[in-house]
Amino acid sequence: MAEIPYKIYLSENEIPSAWYNVRADMKNKPAPLLNPGTGEVLKASDLYPIFCEELSNQEVDNDTKWFDVPGEILDFYKMYRPAPLVRAYCLEKALGTPAHIYYKFEGNNTSGSHKLNSAIAQAYYAKKQGLKGVTTETGAGQWGTALSMATAYFGLDCQVYMVKVSYEQKPFRREVMRTYGASVTPSPSMSTNVGRKINEEFPGTNGSLGCAISEAVEAATSQEGYRYVLGSVLNQVLLHQSVIGLETKAALDKYGIKADMIIGCAGGGSNLGGLISPFAGEMLRGEASYDIVAVEPASCPSLTRGSYVYDFADTGKVCPLAKMYTLGSSFMPAPNHAGGLRYHGMSPVVSQLYDDGIIRAVSVKQTEVFEAATKFARVEGILPAPESSHAIKVAIDEALRCKETGEAKNIVFGLTGTGYFDLVAYQKFNDGVMEDYIPTDEEIAKSLASCPKV
Amino acid sequence: MAEIPYKIYLSENEIPSAWYNVRADMKNKPAPLLNPGTGEVLKASDLYPIFCEELSNQEVDNDTKWFDVPGEILDFYKMYRPAPLVRAYCLEKALGTPAHIYYKFEGNNTSGSHKLNSAIAQAYYAKKQGLKGVTTETGAGQWGTALSMATAYFGLDCQVYMVKVSYEQKPFRREVMRTYGASVTPSPSMSTNVGRKINEEFPGTNGSLGCAISEAVEAATSQEGYRYVLGSVLNQVLLHQSVIGLETKAALDKYGIKADMIIGCAGGGSNLGGLISPFAGEMLRGEASYDIVAVEPASCPSLTRGSYVYDFADTGKVCPLAKMYTLGSSFMPAPNHAGGLRYHGMSPVVSQLYDDGIIRAVSVKQTEVFEAATKFARVEGILPAPESSHAIKVAIDEALRCKETGEAKNIVFGLTGTGYFDLVAYQKFNDGVMEDYIPTDEEIAKSLASCPKV
Repeated sequence: MAEIPYKIYLSENEIPSAWYNVRADMKNKPAPLLNPGTGEVLKASDLYPIFCEELSNQEVDNDTKWFDVPGEILDFYKMYRPAPLVRAYCLEKALGTPAHIYYKFEGNNTSGSHKLNSAIAQAYYAKKQGLKGVTTETGAGQWGTALSMATAYFGLDCQVYMVKVSYEQKPFRREVMRTYGASVTPSPSMSTNVGRKINEEFPGTNGSLGCAISEAVEAATSQEGYRYVLGSVLNQVLLHQSVIGLETKAALDKYGIKADMIIGCAGGGSNLGGLISPFAGEMLRGEASYDIVAVEPASCPSLTRGSYVYDFADTGKVCPLAKMYTLGSSFMPAPNHAGGLRYHGMSPVVSQLYDDGIIRAVSVKQTEVFEAATKFARVEGILPAPESSHAIKVAIDEALRCKETGEAKNIVFGLTGTGYFDLVAYQKFNDGVMEDYIPTDEEIAKSLASCPKV
Repeated sequence: MAEIPYKIYLSENEIPSAWYNVRADMKNKPAPLLNPGTGEVLKASDLYPIFCEELSNQEVDNDTKWFDVPGEILDFYKMYRPAPLVRAYCLEKALGTPAHIYYKFEGNNTSGSHKLNSAIAQAYYAKKQGLKGVTTETGAGQWGTALSMATAYFGLDCQVYMVKVSYEQKPFRREVMRTYGASVTPSPSMSTNVGRKINEEFPGTNGSLGCAISEAVEAATSQEGYRYVLGSVLNQVLLHQSVIGLETKAALDKYGIKADMIIGCAGGGSNLGGLISPFAGEMLRGEASYDIVAVEPASCPSLTRGSYVYDFADTGKVCPLAKMYTLGSSFMPAPNHAGGLRYHGMSPVVSQLYDDGIIRAVSVKQTEVFEAATKFARVEGILPAPESSHAIKVAIDEALRCKETGEAKNIVFGLTGTGYFDLVAYQKFNDGVMEDYIPTDEEIAKSLASCPKV
């Protein structure tokens, strides 16, 4: 077997030409979306007023195993993919571990994260349908940046509702989106009904992801030629993100490496779901066994402390209901929570896989996440996003455990993006003033009480 | 011939194992450094109190053609090299040009620029010499970031004097350096003699690169076990940066592509000198001919409007004198000048190649640079650094000229880095309030009068 390089780059013709739909291999399918008014199961056509038609079809299709990646999307993928699978030789040496650590690095594009994989797909289908533009929300800003890049490429209008506190604290994220031609509105705004209502009820509010979603959906459905797009949670997003896992698996196979443990950070589930899809598929088909770990913030622990029930996807309650591990749509992570991974629910696919025991989940505190991030940056040279650093934390812990036991485990984790726009949080950590927050059982019970009775 | 991919990645064993010293092929050698007090030519040993010994040797060696890259540096290079040579298919399509455009992308590492290529070499030699640490200055912050990454890797102390206005306007740059363990001091500070003197003479000054250099040199020479390191201008830096050009040439050769035009942005000359070295070498040996273009800002036009004379390298006049194209060490680019490329002089090697007609130079205005940057970002997906965008501007102009003439020229340019930390400048451009500034002949004559009589 050839020596394993620092970075395993597949060639461009090894970029997956089809997305893998893990739902096709799931015996227990993820629960369908429901109409929030009537509680009825939504068909693809029911989603057409909100989402592009082909994306709606992908959303409800639990049977088609492979979806061809259209040529124009493949061409765009070639600008920044294949993403490297990196052997963390330097980190292994610094830890003195016999474990072999690999990370799939998705930060090598201007959006700085894996979000671009689905953004370009959603923009493509919007263009194909002849739409004028799309609307969306963004919190930490990775998704909005990715979408504005994708829409710039296809010449579509892009309207981003950005959570007000992020809009004000992350002016640089906003400027990247503007540079790509997107319009960025702080949410809640006064330009939608739901925004005006929230501003009236909660004067001076900082906004939330759930609220920005409501605004973006209203903006899409009230303008001719617009649809709403979303960067996580949805089945279609996990489908597109399967390129991460497919490339990871191809790179491992190429060098005859069998992963023992696969680790991904988990907010809405877009990266985790994409990374683990082909591995979970093998487990579902009984072909292999992996220790798959979802890592979530202790301050927003939907898998480890939430309930698996139908819930609202947004604050304004205009979106379909989804069955997911959730903390309740009224749950808000503490203000000192840095970075993304702050959504109250979890992708229905990931939720079902978790409920079926295919994956497990752990939660970690943000100060220990930034400790791991700093250690990683100093030896591997990449400044990781706070989100990605949740996975780094668990990978380092496992590598140190291997040091004690002498196991030469193959640990694979997803390095979803870079931390260039998260330096306010790094500064807090560098100054020693970063705090942890763990919600009480009472807080979670209270927000869970806001879930609908279905 | 195989189809040319979007990104040409060499394999890790194709990373150059030796740096190429273009001085060995120059008939007219760059002029030697002089003692600022006596005017005498400096030997390597004269530089030992300031620079590491091996680096001093590299600095004055005009004869050795190849320097082996030490194994530990090669290992570090493998973390982020080879850098891709990208075929700008999307830009070509957007421009409708028959020209083929290639760019060598050096931004795929956390420092966000090519500076890391020399930073790791300089840190390595400091470590090898048994030093405790190094001192340096940084303006826009790319060099300081690269050096702090490199010193973190080797466990060296790193003291960065950051031009005060950048320190205040770019807190995120500062935080990246701190995350890598560097200490960052705004310059002029009150912790050096030269800093106190400048603060006394010019109360409330914003600082300058020349002043920060003086402080860093004083800090290095007044502390046991410290040396000074510099990210541009010096011969040793261009030597290390030859990896850019060697990889570029190897990638072109692999696909049988003959470059017609090679374009690099030029501040102190580190990227330009590295990128063009092997191509200039072929010209010097009479083996090939290229149109090599240095692009500098109209606001700091050392090649196109400076004089080729001996000058001070720093404001405090503690550094050796260098013969270079210069605007005079008292020259300050206008406050509205964004980004780097603001040094008053030009690398002696680049200066000599320019004087001998091996390369030519043009200057461009910053508003047209940001126009080109935005156009590039929207189709190629990478948010370029303002510095790099100088080269983009000239590449796009040439591609549009080819559109008129029908020429299928091969245009190669250096994309030195990313613009994540330059969004204040992008915001000015997006808001339509960015201005241009071109110094008058009188201003340049006045600052040139400050050059020493040698």
